[in-house]
Amino acid sequence: MSFKYILYDEEEKIGFISLNRPEKRNALSRGLLEELTELLLKIGQEKKIKVVVLKGIGKIFSAGHDLKEIADGSPQDVLQMFQACFLTMRAIREIPQPVIVQVHGIATAAGCQLVAAADLAVAAEDARFATPGVKIGLFCTTPAVFLSRNIGRKKAMEMLLTGDFMSAQEALIHGLVNKVVPSSELEAVTSELAGKIACNSLSTMAIGKKAFYQQINMEDFQALNYATEVISLSSTTKDAQEGIRAFLEKREPKWSDN
Amino acid sequence: MSFKYILYDEEEKIGFISLNRPEKRNALSRGLLEELTELLLKIGQEKKIKVVVLKGIGKIFSAGHDLKEIADGSPQDVLQMFQACFLTMRAIREIPQPVIVQVHGIATAAGCQLVAAADLAVAAEDARFATPGVKIGLFCTTPAVFLSRNIGRKKAMEMLLTGDFMSAQEALIHGLVNKVVPSSELEAVTSELAGKIACNSLSTMAIGKKAFYQQINMEDFQALNYATEVISLSSTTKDAQEGIRAFLEKREPKWSDN
Amino acid sequence: MSFKYILYDEEEKIGFISLNRPEKRNALSRGLLEELTELLLKIGQEKKIKVVVLKGIGKIFSAGHDLKEIADGSPQDVLQMFQACFLTMRAIREIPQPVIVQVHGIATAAGCQLVAAADLAVAAEDARFATPGVKIGLFCTTPAVFLSRNIGRKKAMEMLLTGDFMSAQEALIHGLVNKVVPSSELEAVTSELAGKIACNSLSTMAIGKKAFYQQINMEDFQALNYATEVISLSSTTKDAQEGIRAFLEKREPKWSDN
Repeated sequence: MSFKYILYDEEEKIGFISLNRPEKRNALSRGLLEELTELLLKIGQEKKIKVVVLKGIGKIFSAGHDLKEIADGSPQDVLQMFQACFLTMRAIREIPQPVIVQVHGIATAAGCQLVAAADLAVAAEDARFATPGVKIGLFCTTPAVFLSRNIGRKKAMEMLLTGDFMSAQEALIHGLVNKVVPSSELEAVTSELAGKIACNSLSTMAIGKKAFYQQINMEDFQALNYATEVISLSSTTKDAQEGIRAFLEKREPKWSDN
Repeated sequence: MSFKYILYDEEEKIGFISLNRPEKRNALSRGLLEELTELLLKIGQEKKIKVVVLKGIGKIFSAGHDLKEIADGSPQDVLQMFQACFLTMRAIREIPQPVIVQVHGIATAAGCQLVAAADLAVAAEDARFATPGVKIGLFCTTPAVFLSRNIGRKKAMEMLLTGDFMSAQEALIHGLVNKVVPSSELEAVTSELAGKIACNSLSTMAIGKKAFYQQINMEDFQALNYATEVISLSSTTKDAQEGIRAFLEKREPKWSDN
Repeated sequence: MSFKYILYDEEEKIGFISLNRPEKRNALSRGLLEELTELLLKIGQEKKIKVVVLKGIGKIFSAGHDLKEIADGSPQDVLQMFQACFLTMRAIREIPQPVIVQVHGIATAAGCQLVAAADLAVAAEDARFATPGVKIGLFCTTPAVFLSRNIGRKKAMEMLLTGDFMSAQEALIHGLVNKVVPSSELEAVTSELAGKIACNSLSTMAIGKKAFYQQINMEDFQALNYATEVISLSSTTKDAQEGIRAFLEKREPKWSDN
């Protein structure tokens, strides 16, 4: 696979994807989104690596969609671009591997949506987040979906109605990111987190990630009933059996996918 | 329109509504609620102003319903009062304009519900919030709806079961309000926020506000699918076209409703 | 009633339940869970006490399920153990009394689930929380249900994917617990909170607790419509009538269940 708009690198069970349009502030054009979806689905299918880190080359993480594409495209083109974005978000959700976004500089509009849609996010302390579509007459309706599911209604509405930036520290308190670290440590801390997660069994994480997002959209006890079935069934899997035995025998587990 | 229990004033595309029963701690009687609903719906229909600020005259924002109305009314009267309150909350949600609540003093019971149901809220640093119905044998079931959707379950249950006050600072951390400012700056900061929002296109905000609350009650990818359609369609509107062009041409946009 | 794995004590309308397997780190075996469910349902049916405090004997609150039970049991045994856990969580939800968890030491896996599923939680400042199943190949799918409904997605996924501990302070900020206090004050603060809640009318709290969790799983205005009916009907109850009269007459209310 060769890509025009992204870079890809694998290191010890971690897949590093870099948005690589620094001259365009890593704008999420239809072309870039299609490459990203294709790569994510391939990673999900191959199951060679256990965790994905998504980051940006250049001064910022991503400024969102390419406004020229929206301004110059036909309504059909624009719809296809937004549908390409939908498919990228669904790929992030549907692959078995956890996806960690590593944010530096700014993440705005669909760039902020990537952060919100990912499983985990680590931000540099000077990173900033915004959904400024309202200022150009195009409300950030799609970023709103996962943003409101990360930071709550009032804060999401504030970002959506003002277009103002939210600091990394606020993003941490309100739940958009998991960790905030000095810029100089961003790469190291994110890789360390990815490395820790890569020590887990992928099949265990695949069951868990899928069940997590299934149950989160259910009524409380429908969710618990479903989760009870999943955990009961998964306790009979090879990796659960091995993991529990290893724990009781005070040794390191050997996963089937290591 | 003339009102008995509220005041209304328009200034530069901002509509300022004041609860005006200071001698009754701005109790939300059926009469007041009906006036508030009527005014909100009129604002929503006329579309002359772009944002609403809701505040209280006197020492506090609002102490909630009028207990005498509940104590002395027939069951039918009480039901109609609560239904009047339901209609006010729905009007806040359904009008195209964002509604900002400006809170000073205290906001309790249905007064706290107004804060929770609004799109945005700014509080004075000495403002306090409570849902103390449990103390008088009448659990704050209706305030619980938006409170639990703002501050999470554990904190909401604490307020509902103890009736204790929550400070403005806690309200900020837990997501009930957007900003906390010194009392002396409350009016200025709220007006500044309203003024910033009033610079946006109302039709853009109307699309956004409606879509935001539609999607928030949907399953994740049903929500994203819906939002994708909304943003694709709205990218062809006059104000989106103008806003994007203005941005690319580095000039101020001219909205159709300015 | 006599129990093997738990202790029970009633004091001034408060029921204190203690997990009593300190030598097993209060592991939630099927036997313990069945006793806990039986006791909770009895408390709910008898209505003698008004609030439940759930705590642990020994060094920690609870380390979750008994791994030997999972390792050695048949798939059918394991399913029954998880179903026993489901029934305990449902009992916590369905009894009319509020349930407060008092956490010291650690609360992991199903122990953390108890904290998340309870109505309220008070933690010692050195208490720690984790869902470490992923490390032993068995993702904490059931704890994920209420954890994600307490602390949000990103933080929940971090705990679930890393198995790392969350501090009491973080648990407070993210909404898993209501109060964090020095260890030496844990018992006193929890009892004080329980005592305050025990001053309320149980029938009022029963209506409120049921309605709270019913509405939280509904669409916003379906929820408000339902809550409007509940509060209107409950305003005619004996305790609401008494509570409102007492408030207007500036005297203490006398509840029907005191």
